[in-house]
Amino acid sequence: MTYDPASFDAYIEQHRARFLDEFGHFIAQPSVAAHRRGTREMAALVAERLRAAGAEATVSETAGEPIVYAEQGPPDAARTLLIYNHYDVQPEDPVELWDSPPFEMALRDGRIYGRGVADDKGELLARIQAVEAWQATQGELPVRIKWVVEGEEEEGSPSLNAWVRAHAAMLRADGILWEGAGYDEAGRPIFGLGCKGIAYFELHCQGPSHDLHSSVAGLVPNPAWRLVWALSTLKNANDEITLDGYLDHVAPLSPETWAAIDAVPMEFEAMRRRFGISGWLNGLSDHEARRRYLAEPTITICGIESGYTGPGSKTVLPAEARAKLDFRLVPNLTPELAQTLLRRHLDRRGFEDISITFLGGEGPAASPLGSLIERAAVAASQDAWGKTPVVQPWFAGSGPMYSFSTVLGLPAIFAGGTWHPDARAHSPNENILVEDYFRSLRFTGAFLHRFATLEADGA
Amino acid sequence: MTYDPASFDAYIEQHRARFLDEFGHFIAQPSVAAHRRGTREMAALVAERLRAAGAEATVSETAGEPIVYAEQGPPDAARTLLIYNHYDVQPEDPVELWDSPPFEMALRDGRIYGRGVADDKGELLARIQAVEAWQATQGELPVRIKWVVEGEEEEGSPSLNAWVRAHAAMLRADGILWEGAGYDEAGRPIFGLGCKGIAYFELHCQGPSHDLHSSVAGLVPNPAWRLVWALSTLKNANDEITLDGYLDHVAPLSPETWAAIDAVPMEFEAMRRRFGISGWLNGLSDHEARRRYLAEPTITICGIESGYTGPGSKTVLPAEARAKLDFRLVPNLTPELAQTLLRRHLDRRGFEDISITFLGGEGPAASPLGSLIERAAVAASQDAWGKTPVVQPWFAGSGPMYSFSTVLGLPAIFAGGTWHPDARAHSPNENILVEDYFRSLRFTGAFLHRFATLEADGA
Repeated sequence: MTYDPASFDAYIEQHRARFLDEFGHFIAQPSVAAHRRGTREMAALVAERLRAAGAEATVSETAGEPIVYAEQGPPDAARTLLIYNHYDVQPEDPVELWDSPPFEMALRDGRIYGRGVADDKGELLARIQAVEAWQATQGELPVRIKWVVEGEEEEGSPSLNAWVRAHAAMLRADGILWEGAGYDEAGRPIFGLGCKGIAYFELHCQGPSHDLHSSVAGLVPNPAWRLVWALSTLKNANDEITLDGYLDHVAPLSPETWAAIDAVPMEFEAMRRRFGISGWLNGLSDHEARRRYLAEPTITICGIESGYTGPGSKTVLPAEARAKLDFRLVPNLTPELAQTLLRRHLDRRGFEDISITFLGGEGPAASPLGSLIERAAVAASQDAWGKTPVVQPWFAGSGPMYSFSTVLGLPAIFAGGTWHPDARAHSPNENILVEDYFRSLRFTGAFLHRFATLEADGA
Repeated sequence: MTYDPASFDAYIEQHRARFLDEFGHFIAQPSVAAHRRGTREMAALVAERLRAAGAEATVSETAGEPIVYAEQGPPDAARTLLIYNHYDVQPEDPVELWDSPPFEMALRDGRIYGRGVADDKGELLARIQAVEAWQATQGELPVRIKWVVEGEEEEGSPSLNAWVRAHAAMLRADGILWEGAGYDEAGRPIFGLGCKGIAYFELHCQGPSHDLHSSVAGLVPNPAWRLVWALSTLKNANDEITLDGYLDHVAPLSPETWAAIDAVPMEFEAMRRRFGISGWLNGLSDHEARRRYLAEPTITICGIESGYTGPGSKTVLPAEARAKLDFRLVPNLTPELAQTLLRRHLDRRGFEDISITFLGGEGPAASPLGSLIERAAVAASQDAWGKTPVVQPWFAGSGPMYSFSTVLGLPAIFAGGTWHPDARAHSPNENILVEDYFRSLRFTGAFLHRFATLEADGA
């Protein structure tokens, strides 16, 4: 198996205008999972484009939005690559803050604007077009490819896990090329081998049947106080998690993993400026902040509400109080464990009256260091871009990688994507750089070659 | 000076429909001090009604909402009665929980519904109509009457104290008939000689400049957590106030005062049913609950808000958090003391970043036992209703009586009002009983007679 990047690159140059035109069609099809808007049309469009690139594609039903599943390449190939992307996008509102219509491709100043260009339609289409370019210039694909393109990623992938479990045999592969990688402020490629999990809960405390005059505060239980007391037992004022037994489940990291985390370059000063804060929490050093950001679990009050919150004063004892809590999970924490320990912790302290509702989540994902998929991605970055990427053991965000890397035991990597620090994914004026789009195609060509030819793990 | 209750009562019966119609006009004029909505129109309406009853009324400007001040009756009368009421009302929200529009009088099942019917428009208008009835049936008033009707009571009367101090000479009187008395579950008239004070604060904590993605929770200070931690240091989970040094200032009560408090009849079971709770806070006995209710200070979270509070989940780290706190004060606590100690307490624990805004308040008020105003009210209750009232040393609620009873040294009494246990003041479906409204008119007639004719204090 040989690879001729010159002819591959020439094909891309030759078809540049058509490739962008196809991207415009992808952007023009709204596919907002939150509003169930255009998702089926988008799934059909993706399946059609995969077929045009030679894949056998099906639109596979789930309890929610369908998953586009496709396979191509030699059935008897020595290696199989699974590629994960998603075709759904975030809602476009507030639409008035966009400089051009969100569902029209706009080219300005070397950037491509539109909802989903970064997250995740550009990366998806670039990979399909790269497969086309491979076949047109190199011949048969060097690996079997299995495409999984879901439509609920922006909603927390509620249907994916069950689908993956139901199709475990079909999804057998040697590694997964994941979505969502990109570049940092210095233009360094940022790849990742895993991500934190998440569990999102709503806590609710009921007091009297209706808001009471606050003069009865001496004798009527106040749900706002009870919720404050309960919350204050979960983390202390040093921001240390004090949920009973929780941290005992956190898997210790090897010195090598800590070293890899410590080596991740971060633009701390720029981050603080962007956040509008003068220093990190509790005066953490940048070194400590990096470790907390990338490798430690968090419990966050995302929202809290009780009683009167309008202007001025209203002397009420509230009828109810609620808080939204987001737990970011590292191995071996899980949403189920978080909920079980939280319930037990509250009950032990007499907060049986505070209910816990699980609003969604997914486990953490981690892949072993040095696997074939990582080595292939690093080599492809060097081949196609002349740059050695930063490979983070984890990303701080959360995603559905858990379903694959943990449930199926497959190593995965975030690599080869088009994000950049001003991509504004989830915000108005989402954009990528035009050149990053075509760089992503070249990466994919080099990656297919390396993934097919590098020596096996443990060889 | 004689008094003929038969002709007085006959007049009320004769004008019953018109009196209710006038009440409807009072209700229909919104006068929400918190929103500065309709307050000037309401002040004008009150002044006009007082003039129609023969008073010289002025709308007296303050730093906030105007005070309606009026005088009537013989300038050379031996005694002067000051009557205090307020024309402002609580906000009507949540408006969707009302069974009829809050600013329309609704008559259902022997009750009058509408925002402010109990607190305090009914009592105010009933007193004016009683003065009309006196003059129509008995002739000249037996006392000089000074009306003070303010428009910021529901906001903590921020302008009243300065106004009272500035007009101390004008306000000279022999006693004050206060607003806000009513009936307990057994139908017993409940009068009071004083009330707790109040201090209302808003606490605010600023985090990052805008809501952030919650993946940064490990390194960015979360204002919701900080506020929760700070609040949890003010009261422990046993509902004991732990604000540094605060309780040291509470004046001890004499055994006689405790005995008077312990003798106050309370329908505990009915209260619990009405509040929709199965027991008192921390399993307090009824005896303990009474003492806490009538004689102990409280700190109440009236409202708290931060971050995302809509449906479902949103993974944000909030930019800010705020809480509204109501301190109920007993002698010798004051709003100034509460604020000073609160600031010191928070600073000592590293919460210098949490700001405290004083939104209003007033000191506690107490009147001596057995004064003319108390004896006249008790006698009027016996005359008009055939019932001896319970006279409480304090009410659990708060009000601006402090400005009069402490600053001017005038004895005052809560008496003759229309509240009942299901009045839902400050809540949706505020109501009074139709018959209580007219009972309040008859009380006022008897009270004027008794206040004019009983022997003087110390005689």
